Amino acid sequence: MSAPLRVGIAGLGTVGGGVVKLLRTNAEVIAARAGRRIEAVAVSARDRAKQRGFDLAGLRWESDPLALASAKDVDVVVELIGGSDGPGRKLAEAAIDAGKGVVTANKALLACRGFDLAKRAEAKKASLAIEAAVAGGIPILKALREGLAANRLARVYGILNGTCNYILTQMQGSGRDFAEVLAEAQKLGYAETDPSFDIDGVDTAHKLAVLASVAFGMPVAFDKVHVEGIRAITAADIAFAAELGFRLKLLAVARRTNHGIEQRVHPALVALDDPIAHVDGVFNAVVAEGDFVGRTVFEGRGAGEGPTASAVVADLIDIASGRGTPAFGVPASALVAQPHAPMERHVGPYYIRLTVHDRPGVIADIAAILRDEQVSIESLLQRGRAETVPVVMITHETEEAAMRRAAARIGALASVTEPPCLIRIELL
Amino acid sequence: MSAPLRVGIAGLGTVGGGVVKLLRTNAEVIAARAGRRIEAVAVSARDRAKQRGFDLAGLRWESDPLALASAKDVDVVVELIGGSDGPGRKLAEAAIDAGKGVVTANKALLACRGFDLAKRAEAKKASLAIEAAVAGGIPILKALREGLAANRLARVYGILNGTCNYILTQMQGSGRDFAEVLAEAQKLGYAETDPSFDIDGVDTAHKLAVLASVAFGMPVAFDKVHVEGIRAITAADIAFAAELGFRLKLLAVARRTNHGIEQRVHPALVALDDPIAHVDGVFNAVVAEGDFVGRTVFEGRGAGEGPTASAVVADLIDIASGRGTPAFGVPASALVAQPHAPMERHVGPYYIRLTVHDRPGVIADIAAILRDEQVSIESLLQRGRAETVPVVMITHETEEAAMRRAAARIGALASVTEPPCLIRIELL
Repeated sequence: MSAPLRVGIAGLGTVGGGVVKLLRTNAEVIAARAGRRIEAVAVSARDRAKQRGFDLAGLRWESDPLALASAKDVDVVVELIGGSDGPGRKLAEAAIDAGKGVVTANKALLACRGFDLAKRAEAKKASLAIEAAVAGGIPILKALREGLAANRLARVYGILNGTCNYILTQMQGSGRDFAEVLAEAQKLGYAETDPSFDIDGVDTAHKLAVLASVAFGMPVAFDKVHVEGIRAITAADIAFAAELGFRLKLLAVARRTNHGIEQRVHPALVALDDPIAHVDGVFNAVVAEGDFVGRTVFEGRGAGEGPTASAVVADLIDIASGRGTPAFGVPASALVAQPHAPMERHVGPYYIRLTVHDRPGVIADIAAILRDEQVSIESLLQRGRAETVPVVMITHETEEAAMRRAAARIGALASVTEPPCLIRIELL
Repeated sequence: MSAPLRVGIAGLGTVGGGVVKLLRTNAEVIAARAGRRIEAVAVSARDRAKQRGFDLAGLRWESDPLALASAKDVDVVVELIGGSDGPGRKLAEAAIDAGKGVVTANKALLACRGFDLAKRAEAKKASLAIEAAVAGGIPILKALREGLAANRLARVYGILNGTCNYILTQMQGSGRDFAEVLAEAQKLGYAETDPSFDIDGVDTAHKLAVLASVAFGMPVAFDKVHVEGIRAITAADIAFAAELGFRLKLLAVARRTNHGIEQRVHPALVALDDPIAHVDGVFNAVVAEGDFVGRTVFEGRGAGEGPTASAVVADLIDIASGRGTPAFGVPASALVAQPHAPMERHVGPYYIRLTVHDRPGVIADIAAILRDEQVSIESLLQRGRAETVPVVMITHETEEAAMRRAAARIGALASVTEPPCLIRIELL
């Protein structure tokens, strides 16, 4: 058996601690599969005195994470500092420049600088491994890059943020509204004190940009991702969706269209027979559609100590056993920028919820606008008798630009009392 | 870019044809991901004159498949002949002995001789790649071997035979009985003229033996797989299962227990919240439970031209790009035989369906036997009033040996008119 692979870990939060524990707990299994031992030799984090629930004995403490990049006894640096800029980025770049392998779970860094990082790593013949950055414990990047490598993919979509999926699942189960469920999720530690990164869709968009790069062989294009979060979702929308045979999820979708590659993160309705309709709570799932393999689905825990550590150590095992794949599936020089399909050209069905005065002729006015914009209605629900009542419609496939024009005109009607709520429907 | 990888394909049925088409259709994508072109150069099959729906031009025809093993212009042999013995085995062995890589979808061969084949390949430093042998297009072996490589697995289970899942899904949807649905499946080409390999569970058992070897790092032990098929399943059982909140599936399960590794193929009830309860028709799915990653689920098409070709070519891409993993996850010399847990020691809940004379005291007699055998009843249904009526029970967790003793004694009661039907329940 060859010499051990020596690892330096920067960042000892939940995931960093998980990596240390996993390397210790399953040392034998890991050595058997890697063909050599993998040993954590040095660590770096902000607070040395912090209680972490595991023993730091045998791990050299570096107060400056950059010391890991230059340490002679470190072969691979595990970067778990995070952030698209600052010390996480500096460390990854320094480690690569020193010819060391880098394993990172830092989706912000990869979304913003993944392409540059991959070029840099290739120039230095250093490994860059990124499985832990997308969908936690699900080996989805390996699946796309290697397992489905023979396919041209048409679409990759899924649930990539456990916090949002937990909140939406709770709203679905309890009928409670967003703010209440968010507050509870924060109390339980499922949502951050400042939850905006998760609930505004930014975290999901980071992951989607990386996923789309691997799926379509293009440089990461985070600035081309259309992003909407879940703040505006109401209990009423979830209930109407259920009545119409749908579940509401925060979806990440990357799709090949006639206008180019569409990348979008937004709340969406999925039919009950969609394999991800039943993916609840903190679970993540990704559906990948290939021209030969057809539809494949990958599901598992998208965050947390054990699952993310599992992905980090799988990358270490690949490096230890000399199995190299470029981070984004092909060498950076072979990634080809693709035309970007703008949201206005998106085509799909829509859910529209209106609040209207309950008077004769209101529906006729709305229907006339939809007809003018060539939006065709598949079903319509009108509930209750009161001063104002909800009207919910499902449309046939419509271009987003037409849908937005129709919604603006409908919102301007005197009988419509609130801005229309539009939610896209993602078909299987 | 390096020289092309030159491939010889033996067997030009559905899958072989798919491989030829895939290598042609996606040649550019494949070359980008493999770092070199992959070209089919020679083929061998029984009937040269057969209409195949693709052009044989540019492919050298070998009437003897063994010629592929010795051909100077063939780097890798794709063995799609099938069978645990005979020409498929001979070709795989000869190709390995000639130092060529072998890619095979032959689960029968791997189940019966996989360990020997892996040792032989390692001795010759030849690649042996087997993804297509289990679950068609789902890259499940790569996921277990590499993506989840850091985990100790507790259980791997799933649906591995599309024919059986199609038949059970049709029975579920239509309420029709097994024989009728099988006849229809045969007419539609979803079941073979001689369907026994599929419906008696042998095909599933072949795949499970390979899956278990990878999951638990042990030599393939097909002779230790407990196998039951779906011939005895009735529409009544499927309907009762649905009423009790279950779906009936032909499951393959490999599990680490206190008595050793359990390997079993049998009809089983799964709860509706089990991720594979909704896997219908010809789809396959595998659930893998790791100590750090938790529960992961992999779903896709388990057979057919496109999906199986996708798996074969993914293996070719791994070989072309120099990514080697031992076929069973660790070198054959590092596979460790595990104690075999006998079925009598299996513990789980059971579904029992009895047909009884509708008389006072019958249930009391049955309950007394269950009490004597320490089998505890969770729920009981008795339906209809007639000369004979069905009684359905769900038990709490019970050891198989006790359950069998109880069933034998119950079957011997004068008031019980048919042998009891026992179906295991697989808990999430």
